[in-house]
Amino acid sequence: MNIIVQKYGGSSVSDKNKIIKVAKKIKQKVSLGFKLIVVVSAMGKTTDNLLNLAKEISKNPNPRELDMLLTTGEQMSVSLLTMALHEINIKAKSLNSFQAEINTLGNHNNAKIKDIKKDKIIKFLKENDVLVITGFQGINPNGDLTTLGRGGSDTSAVALAAALKSNCEIYSDYPIYTIDPKLYKNAKKINKITYDEMLEMASLGSNILHSRAVEIAKKFNVKLYCASTFSNEGGTYVISNTIENPVVTGMSLMKNQTRVNITNLPENHPLLHGIFENLSQKFNVDMISLISIDNKINVSLSIIEEEMKDFDKYLQKALQNIDNSKVSYEHGYVKLSVVGIGMKTEKGVASRFFKSLQNIPIKLVTTSEIKISCLIEKENTAKAIDCLVKEFDL
Amino acid sequence: MNIIVQKYGGSSVSDKNKIIKVAKKIKQKVSLGFKLIVVVSAMGKTTDNLLNLAKEISKNPNPRELDMLLTTGEQMSVSLLTMALHEINIKAKSLNSFQAEINTLGNHNNAKIKDIKKDKIIKFLKENDVLVITGFQGINPNGDLTTLGRGGSDTSAVALAAALKSNCEIYSDYPIYTIDPKLYKNAKKINKITYDEMLEMASLGSNILHSRAVEIAKKFNVKLYCASTFSNEGGTYVISNTIENPVVTGMSLMKNQTRVNITNLPENHPLLHGIFENLSQKFNVDMISLISIDNKINVSLSIIEEEMKDFDKYLQKALQNIDNSKVSYEHGYVKLSVVGIGMKTEKGVASRFFKSLQNIPIKLVTTSEIKISCLIEKENTAKAIDCLVKEFDL
Repeated sequence: MNIIVQKYGGSSVSDKNKIIKVAKKIKQKVSLGFKLIVVVSAMGKTTDNLLNLAKEISKNPNPRELDMLLTTGEQMSVSLLTMALHEINIKAKSLNSFQAEINTLGNHNNAKIKDIKKDKIIKFLKENDVLVITGFQGINPNGDLTTLGRGGSDTSAVALAAALKSNCEIYSDYPIYTIDPKLYKNAKKINKITYDEMLEMASLGSNILHSRAVEIAKKFNVKLYCASTFSNEGGTYVISNTIENPVVTGMSLMKNQTRVNITNLPENHPLLHGIFENLSQKFNVDMISLISIDNKINVSLSIIEEEMKDFDKYLQKALQNIDNSKVSYEHGYVKLSVVGIGMKTEKGVASRFFKSLQNIPIKLVTTSEIKISCLIEKENTAKAIDCLVKEFDL
Repeated sequence: MNIIVQKYGGSSVSDKNKIIKVAKKIKQKVSLGFKLIVVVSAMGKTTDNLLNLAKEISKNPNPRELDMLLTTGEQMSVSLLTMALHEINIKAKSLNSFQAEINTLGNHNNAKIKDIKKDKIIKFLKENDVLVITGFQGINPNGDLTTLGRGGSDTSAVALAAALKSNCEIYSDYPIYTIDPKLYKNAKKINKITYDEMLEMASLGSNILHSRAVEIAKKFNVKLYCASTFSNEGGTYVISNTIENPVVTGMSLMKNQTRVNITNLPENHPLLHGIFENLSQKFNVDMISLISIDNKINVSLSIIEEEMKDFDKYLQKALQNIDNSKVSYEHGYVKLSVVGIGMKTEKGVASRFFKSLQNIPIKLVTTSEIKISCLIEKENTAKAIDCLVKEFDL
């Protein structure tokens, strides 16, 4: 069997007409001789609406029950898309996580796929042209429904492709651009990008692909193709190597950043190491910068604004036995990053980066082999994007 | 463990406030020392809305896919009710049909419960005060979600009560009245009714209880209590015997009836028996009346108006080799029935029935040991109800 996995995002199935269009797109592929596994997200704003319904009843809904609620969104969309496929004479069957035997581990609301029993899927695929499978979810060892976190349907699709050793096509509003076209309208489409670059871009705020999906694709060498569902402009291949690499392939923006300043920490205090290790496990801590002056340590780092309350609660408790330490928070920042595998070999990228941003105050910086990130005031976002786009021809 | 099964209908959980009220009602029972199995229908008009969504995509949605879609309604309501129970510190857990292992047989959209594996339910009930279980659905031998037909949540609740040998409380808008208060505002509440009477009333158009639920209750001797969710007026016990029986316990009305007249059929034609057997299997055929004149048979019967098109298609085909037979349809009828276990012993009930309706043309009649039904023009409904209520003190 020649199998392809396709994934359609929520905005691609947000109403009747789009569902019918997606069914026709699937039929085209079937007519080329492929058997398809189609992973679908919940229709449009369904997940948000369900979440709001839960919040009306409980400020902190029980995570197991929240997963039980949220997973209905995908079960709705898989059944509707399957009906639309039947209407155009495609043999199709929908499967939820119990039926497709997608097993997970880990926490509710943020589980990880453990394994997929492919025998049953192969059996159903022999009897049908298309299987439409609920994305974003799986069953944990207790038999409970678990969700994979926002964007988790990408991960479902790539995990299915890995299990079936097939290629994976991710359809959403856009292919992958050098920068989100909502932020910079003349952004260019990227034709090819490496897993490592995509991984950096995904974790740095690009919403195109779930970063765990890219991790799995890299680990199992699944060829990814990301494209727009309803346009024919062509998409982006995410692969292990590209022949020629631009220095900077793309740019990501992460909004709502808060800078945390922890000052006056005693050097070599036995508790410090443990505190920071715990913090980075519990929160999305990034861009840690540490300066030691007069046997005192000052630490700056960035977190997502909405995590601040919990972060502060945890930090105050952790620091209660460390005299004179002080914590302050500054809001209103964004994190802007450029990513490119070419940085590994090309010298002077950092200096080009800082020179192009010379009129913009930079509050924190972190770098890796293939990316440079900086924290700037949100008012400077458009200006900074403009400078970097010009400098690196994005 | 002292277990009670409760079922709440869709209108009892149609919004946030009602869900919270139902949770409080459940808490009262828990505080008396009971462990509860709570079966919930989909919120308000959810099932209708999902059905409309399906009809937008397909005029005849695939029954398996339709079940996949419709079952999401109950999964939503069980998770939300469980969250509301957690908010008031009740240990509760929701279960869908895969988790509660409710197994079905038969057709999609109209399946029957085959068995319920109670070991798992007992285990979960030891760890919790309340289990909230999706009504209306189960898993067939293929592992597919199946629904039990409209009103099927009653059946889910009674089947659970039968499996756990517990009593069953059915909460909806009203207890059981001698006649639907929407039809006759001074209807009296019935305090006790037998399974057989309830069965007749349920199949003759009373919407209070699903008739299969009553069948299962009778078979396994489950004590049923039907009451209003949010009022304290007291409810109706459905049991095997009542000590003193009124001659007529209640009255049912079934709207949208069509009278079918099949005339000029040859007597003893070899096909006739098969035709009528098939008709009554495929359609809700009722009130068959047969008159033989001059070696020709004339048959009258009633069907539900919306089945007429399919019925006619089938009948025309079946009669195509029977010369000179004629079929005609008359619309605009209702079926009015009185039900009472006391008819078994009391003489003259039929003559009281016809005498009280003497000014109203009766188009068809059927009787059983405990009921009399007649087909009348819908314009005469209110007048007929009034006559019968007075005659039998309902």
